[in-house]
Amino acid sequence: MIIVKKQAKFHNLNDIKNATEKELETALLELTKGIKDLNEESVLEMQERLDNKIKPHRSLGLLEDMAQQVAGIYGTSHPKINEKAVLLMAGDHGVVAEGVSAAPQEVTRQLFYSYLNGGGGINVLARHAGAEVIATDIGIALPLDPPELMTNRVKCGTENMANGPAMTRKEALLALFTGAKIASEAIDRGINLIATGEVGIGNTTPSSALIASFTGHSVEEVTGRGTGLKDEALKHKQEIIKKAIKVNQPDISDPIDTLSKIGGLEIAALTGAILEAAYRNVPVILDGIISAASALTAYKIAPLSCKYMISSHGSEELGQRLAFEPLGLKPRLDFNMRLGEGTGAALMFNMVEAAIKIADEMATFESASVTTGDF
Amino acid sequence: MIIVKKQAKFHNLNDIKNATEKELETALLELTKGIKDLNEESVLEMQERLDNKIKPHRSLGLLEDMAQQVAGIYGTSHPKINEKAVLLMAGDHGVVAEGVSAAPQEVTRQLFYSYLNGGGGINVLARHAGAEVIATDIGIALPLDPPELMTNRVKCGTENMANGPAMTRKEALLALFTGAKIASEAIDRGINLIATGEVGIGNTTPSSALIASFTGHSVEEVTGRGTGLKDEALKHKQEIIKKAIKVNQPDISDPIDTLSKIGGLEIAALTGAILEAAYRNVPVILDGIISAASALTAYKIAPLSCKYMISSHGSEELGQRLAFEPLGLKPRLDFNMRLGEGTGAALMFNMVEAAIKIADEMATFESASVTTGDF
Repeated sequence: MIIVKKQAKFHNLNDIKNATEKELETALLELTKGIKDLNEESVLEMQERLDNKIKPHRSLGLLEDMAQQVAGIYGTSHPKINEKAVLLMAGDHGVVAEGVSAAPQEVTRQLFYSYLNGGGGINVLARHAGAEVIATDIGIALPLDPPELMTNRVKCGTENMANGPAMTRKEALLALFTGAKIASEAIDRGINLIATGEVGIGNTTPSSALIASFTGHSVEEVTGRGTGLKDEALKHKQEIIKKAIKVNQPDISDPIDTLSKIGGLEIAALTGAILEAAYRNVPVILDGIISAASALTAYKIAPLSCKYMISSHGSEELGQRLAFEPLGLKPRLDFNMRLGEGTGAALMFNMVEAAIKIADEMATFESASVTTGDF
Repeated sequence: MIIVKKQAKFHNLNDIKNATEKELETALLELTKGIKDLNEESVLEMQERLDNKIKPHRSLGLLEDMAQQVAGIYGTSHPKINEKAVLLMAGDHGVVAEGVSAAPQEVTRQLFYSYLNGGGGINVLARHAGAEVIATDIGIALPLDPPELMTNRVKCGTENMANGPAMTRKEALLALFTGAKIASEAIDRGINLIATGEVGIGNTTPSSALIASFTGHSVEEVTGRGTGLKDEALKHKQEIIKKAIKVNQPDISDPIDTLSKIGGLEIAALTGAILEAAYRNVPVILDGIISAASALTAYKIAPLSCKYMISSHGSEELGQRLAFEPLGLKPRLDFNMRLGEGTGAALMFNMVEAAIKIADEMATFESASVTTGDF
């Protein structure tokens, strides 16, 4: 098996579908090993550029942090954002049979069509940011028309995790590598800034389950109202999550075991997309709680992947913040959003670009003849 | 004296400079009375538009709030942002003689030139947002070259408020109406979204003094490190603010008295710009602590003006958050910024535009054939 450095292990969908579980495991190990720390020299060179700008030291805060991070990811003191994309993964969840969501499962498919037609919230905000939306059916339950839309589907929704594993280990690995492939193809086309998005009725349930398991926080702490549950329904959702964890006994020292048992297909796909982006030196902007659960899973697989992550909004789902903690992230946009799709992440594209422009366009103390000093 | 509805009281600079104090007071009363509540019908119509979009109810949070607010301000369910500008007011502060700032006063003038040359942080971020920067010398201490740049200057910096009033009442009114005129001229040119910005070495000191006085919070609570004071210097700054309040005994029931005694020329100008924007039905995006002090002063003069305000970033200067509370605002971008100039506010232009696009471009439940329900 030959690994070409900085290329996806499986570029061709048939390769993934035909791979054995053992080959997928080996590929994951290689993907993980290929994720390196940021280029420290580029980070320092960017810091020096920023320190010469006409402003008090570090006074542009996060904009300076992001400029340094992107420099370290690209490995250059003069990073350029080329093209941008939202990778939107769609999947359904068998656990909706337990009544954990206010919306019917049919809505996943309906919304997926709306993304293809350009009318979703994420389409509006991605267009506004000059980014494209790459929407992938990784595991919608119902059939799509035309059938080609289902090309990347691993499974027609997960099993009901309240009764047993949501996915087999192989299905989780297939979804992960399909997500990695989508990211890889986007990067091959020149996209070098990615945002994560998703749709899937019921998907705050597995996200909260993963976050509770990986962080050790209680189910109550990490579980929110999703699309709008009332108090009693929220309590029921929490009970179902506890049951799923108890029934499946995920081994949290084995992230794929945990992901397969209490995760989701779109969560696995985003995990793969994040790992692939890190492997290919592309920053990833994270959206809400589902993205956070995916990012946390990616971090558990490859800890250095968190260096490639940029947070965006603080979801109304509080589990997101708790998932961010081990990643060294905190929400940056306090917009009370809870739509998902990548809508919060899409708002951050503009901010990352602003950060790079500060480095490129702002005058220096010398060029502007401004007095410098200890301020 | 004839007041033309929805036009600035003083369109011509000479009118302002030649006005008596009594005429300025009368004009302020009329400006204040002309600030009305938002158009509730347009707010509700916008809410209805948003409620039909394919998303859980209110799930786009602040984006929906801003779309409704702008609709209510413009008085239409289909608001359009035309042109955008940052109104950047520059002024100096006699209180720097007390050593309250880490940077020398000369820097105000140097930075002002950089804004005219397009190299300031605010120029970069305004350009990025497609907004112009309107930089006005309202009270820089040192002369400018060419002298025409000083056309709007009311005074060569304030007096040292630790020893007596920063400005006379008339000077404060002149600065306020000059700011209103700058806003009015911008609005006349088609600008219908404004951000506030400023430069002025030492200006966190009067801002904190105003916020402490108007809110009742302690000087310690509302006073930060400005451009980068160390612990001892911060304590000294707080002592100076306390002294200024004690020496001047501002009458907080009279906002102009307070503004003139412990405020600043750029703070007064921004206060006027905010009031004028509200009078002319234009939303105003607020920046950091100096903008917050100006907004709080505007609110004390005309409480309804707060309905026209949009917050942006949370300044590292904690007084900003406390000033926002009575205005019903909270910071929305958690970027650890403390540069001023309007840099945080400029980042919010893109978000307001995103909010309007959600209303204009997102599909409805009906158009996208998505199942609706109680979610």
